[in-house]
Amino acid sequence: MTQGRLIGAVEAGGTKFVLALAREDGTILMRERIATETPATCFPAMAAFFDAAQDAHGRIDAFGVASFGPIDIDPASPAYGTFTTTPKPGWAGARFHDVLGRFGAPIVVDTDVNGAAMGEWMAGAGQGCDTVAYTTVGTGIGTGVVNRGRSLLGFSHYESGHILPPHDRAADPFGGACPYHGDCLEGLACGPAIEKRWGRSLDQLGTAEVELVAGYIAHLAATLVLLHMPDRLIFGGGVMKAPGLIEAVRRQTEAKLGGYVKHPRLDAGLERYIVLPGLGDDAGITGAIALGQKILGIGALRQG
Amino acid sequence: MTQGRLIGAVEAGGTKFVLALAREDGTILMRERIATETPATCFPAMAAFFDAAQDAHGRIDAFGVASFGPIDIDPASPAYGTFTTTPKPGWAGARFHDVLGRFGAPIVVDTDVNGAAMGEWMAGAGQGCDTVAYTTVGTGIGTGVVNRGRSLLGFSHYESGHILPPHDRAADPFGGACPYHGDCLEGLACGPAIEKRWGRSLDQLGTAEVELVAGYIAHLAATLVLLHMPDRLIFGGGVMKAPGLIEAVRRQTEAKLGGYVKHPRLDAGLERYIVLPGLGDDAGITGAIALGQKILGIGALRQG
Repeated sequence: MTQGRLIGAVEAGGTKFVLALAREDGTILMRERIATETPATCFPAMAAFFDAAQDAHGRIDAFGVASFGPIDIDPASPAYGTFTTTPKPGWAGARFHDVLGRFGAPIVVDTDVNGAAMGEWMAGAGQGCDTVAYTTVGTGIGTGVVNRGRSLLGFSHYESGHILPPHDRAADPFGGACPYHGDCLEGLACGPAIEKRWGRSLDQLGTAEVELVAGYIAHLAATLVLLHMPDRLIFGGGVMKAPGLIEAVRRQTEAKLGGYVKHPRLDAGLERYIVLPGLGDDAGITGAIALGQKILGIGALRQG
Repeated sequence: MTQGRLIGAVEAGGTKFVLALAREDGTILMRERIATETPATCFPAMAAFFDAAQDAHGRIDAFGVASFGPIDIDPASPAYGTFTTTPKPGWAGARFHDVLGRFGAPIVVDTDVNGAAMGEWMAGAGQGCDTVAYTTVGTGIGTGVVNRGRSLLGFSHYESGHILPPHDRAADPFGGACPYHGDCLEGLACGPAIEKRWGRSLDQLGTAEVELVAGYIAHLAATLVLLHMPDRLIFGGGVMKAPGLIEAVRRQTEAKLGGYVKHPRLDAGLERYIVLPGLGDDAGITGAIALGQKILGIGALRQG
């Protein structure tokens, strides 16, 4: 075929799955969105989509999966691609290989945020950077870091949402919504925590609420600087769409860093340092495609 | 010569320099300790030591330098090996290559904590781990992370000491000693901050003070878990010698993580997870030698 190799891509999010068939250059040929219910419904729908994709365009050469977690993303692990302790009903123990394995193509599974970080690095707001941190502030909070072309991984993927920020209970009496930690970052600043505290989403609230949430996100931003020294911080996810939020995060991050960390990219105002995703809502599926491109050895072609 | 290649090693600490000549297998042949004054005194002493070392044992094949910072440790930078914004009088702008360059051997410069992390990974408490974080709590606070054989680096080395932990001013009214941030981790928990707050060192203080300081260090430990997922956390430096401190750090870190992060190495009590350096006070100079071994391509030989 003249269109080159084909990539099956899965963006597995907490509320929706985006499935795509793409050419190796990233062009999307087919795309479908399904609700994140249980593996009993999602997995057959995924199989049906990729069956139809193969029927229409030919054999799939690689699968890239960018998924919510917690999930085993260590390629050396026997449980690679398996959801671990997620509280989402039905998902613990489910494995992407169970449904994608029968296509006979290599499968790479990474977290949604690692995938988005890779996609932004290759084709979005992280182009030209050696180190990029992508954080989502949405249903949950999580961060992926791409450092010199690879997503970083310790014994598991990172869990930035569960950092415990300073919490002034006089200014913010809400006890937090995290079942594990109460007032960790996710417990204070993710979408559901905002809804639980104020009964509406952040874009429906005022400056005081935006500044309060920005303070928690700025704690994460400053901590990411000190522990990863990224060339750029990208913040995506539904909460980040609240008007004025990214500007407030920049101001409060700059104040927290106190001028200690010097770098030309850390310009006054942090306007070029703390940014929204270049790929917008496509960061996730682009990231999944990017993971597939990496297996095919063509990732470097896209690096700016 | 039958002894193989020779490594010149420099552990450049805030209060002392340790200089060593080592065989490529790490055996130390000569060793000297000098006070950290200014480059005007330290640099000639360093040159004299390595001149004498070469006279006695032959040509040095590589230099490994594990240094205090802030310092440029990016090998691709034209200022590689140069101190940047350090407030230490005389050191900003000083460059290790200015004194070691004339020996004609390759020079690798990394931070003291990255060097210690590398040394512990190769020959100490981090053997057998994929990811190790080494933190010093002494004159300052800093962390180095070795991930799958390399020290991690963003646009600069990490600066974990300047993370802002929750600070309950009712329990700890001390405003903090950091000139940039006041009550960042270093401002609250490094040796000089403890001396400034209570007039003596932590090993001369009681359980309440140890628990208070442990809380700040545990904030760093939990944050390192969430942002690097290391297989082991090693804590060295003078403050960590206070009786009961490491045990209190383990307890409070476990409480902060709240059972969310699961891993066999995160055993109950964290006794095998949060540990003191296996190399004791030799972690620094062993790390500098390890950096030299890496240039000579023999690092992998020492990995357990």
